Amino acid sequence: MQPRKKPSSECPAARTLESVGEWWSILILRDAFQGCTRFEKFQRSLGIAPNILARRLKHLTAQGMFERRLYHKRPNWYEYVLTPKGRDFFPVVVAMFAWGNKHLSPKGKSLLMADRASSRAVEPIIVAAGTLTPVTPDNVVLVPGPKASPDMLRRLGSMRALRPDSPPT
Amino acid sequence: MQPRKKPSSECPAARTLESVGEWWSILILRDAFQGCTRFEKFQRSLGIAPNILARRLKHLTAQGMFERRLYHKRPNWYEYVLTPKGRDFFPVVVAMFAWGNKHLSPKGKSLLMADRASSRAVEPIIVAAGTLTPVTPDNVVLVPGPKASPDMLRRLGSMRALRPDSPPT
Repeated sequence: MQPRKKPSSECPAARTLESVGEWWSILILRDAFQGCTRFEKFQRSLGIAPNILARRLKHLTAQGMFERRLYHKRPNWYEYVLTPKGRDFFPVVVAMFAWGNKHLSPKGKSLLMADRASSRAVEPIIVAAGTLTPVTPDNVVLVPGPKASPDMLRRLGSMRALRPDSPPT
Repeated sequence: MQPRKKPSSECPAARTLESVGEWWSILILRDAFQGCTRFEKFQRSLGIAPNILARRLKHLTAQGMFERRLYHKRPNWYEYVLTPKGRDFFPVVVAMFAWGNKHLSPKGKSLLMADRASSRAVEPIIVAAGTLTPVTPDNVVLVPGPKASPDMLRRLGSMRALRPDSPPT
């Protein structure tokens, strides 16, 4: 059975996975958010094979998440700088970080996120811009956008979003 | 060159990828957040091969993200219900959804997230619990936790976190 392309490519989360959803890509972005820009630095941090790292950096640059910038002439050396599109990926990494710290740190936390100014630990949560009310499976629902296809409309109709009255036990 | 296990397994974002970072797993969770619980429903929605779906559901159940629940006897049929740990993964999917909608919807949005009560569109952002200030690469920094290894301490020292004064151009 072949994956049905349409619904997946119509779903923005699936599009994100198609575009960036690769183990190494996300770790490369994670390091970029910590200030990594140079090939050697990424390689040291990730312990990744050079050919794989080169391929991922090329892909992320082609995707418009990195901009290649010359930082040394003769020989020409380039660094990889996050674009605004790349920086916008930060919440995905932060959400993975928070979930991992909460659920996959049985022996205690090795890393914490802290406020740069106050140095206080930061617990990231997702809220709705404007109202700042938490975004949970119970209080949000997916609705068709202006470009929803008939297939997507059917798909949404066939799915019952999680409701507060039916939480998992 | 082999991946260096320690830093990756010490980083909660990397742990998350190791545990759930698989294309299908994230789409399965996405559908679960929309109310999917049954094998056939996941299969129809994802267009995924039954053997792959079975393997991913088994893995996510073993990871404690789904609880298998009997919903029909003789023959015994089971459904897959999100556990609290599984529900906590919601922000990751939401962040991917938001990024995909912002950056990968050139022809317009097919899907929107809306508030269940008001039906108003929801733009998810990530903020610090308590202060509700936005979490960005500029205002947060990674700091060692109580269980940080010497390797992690060195690693953190070697990385310059992104600063407001050095945004990508």
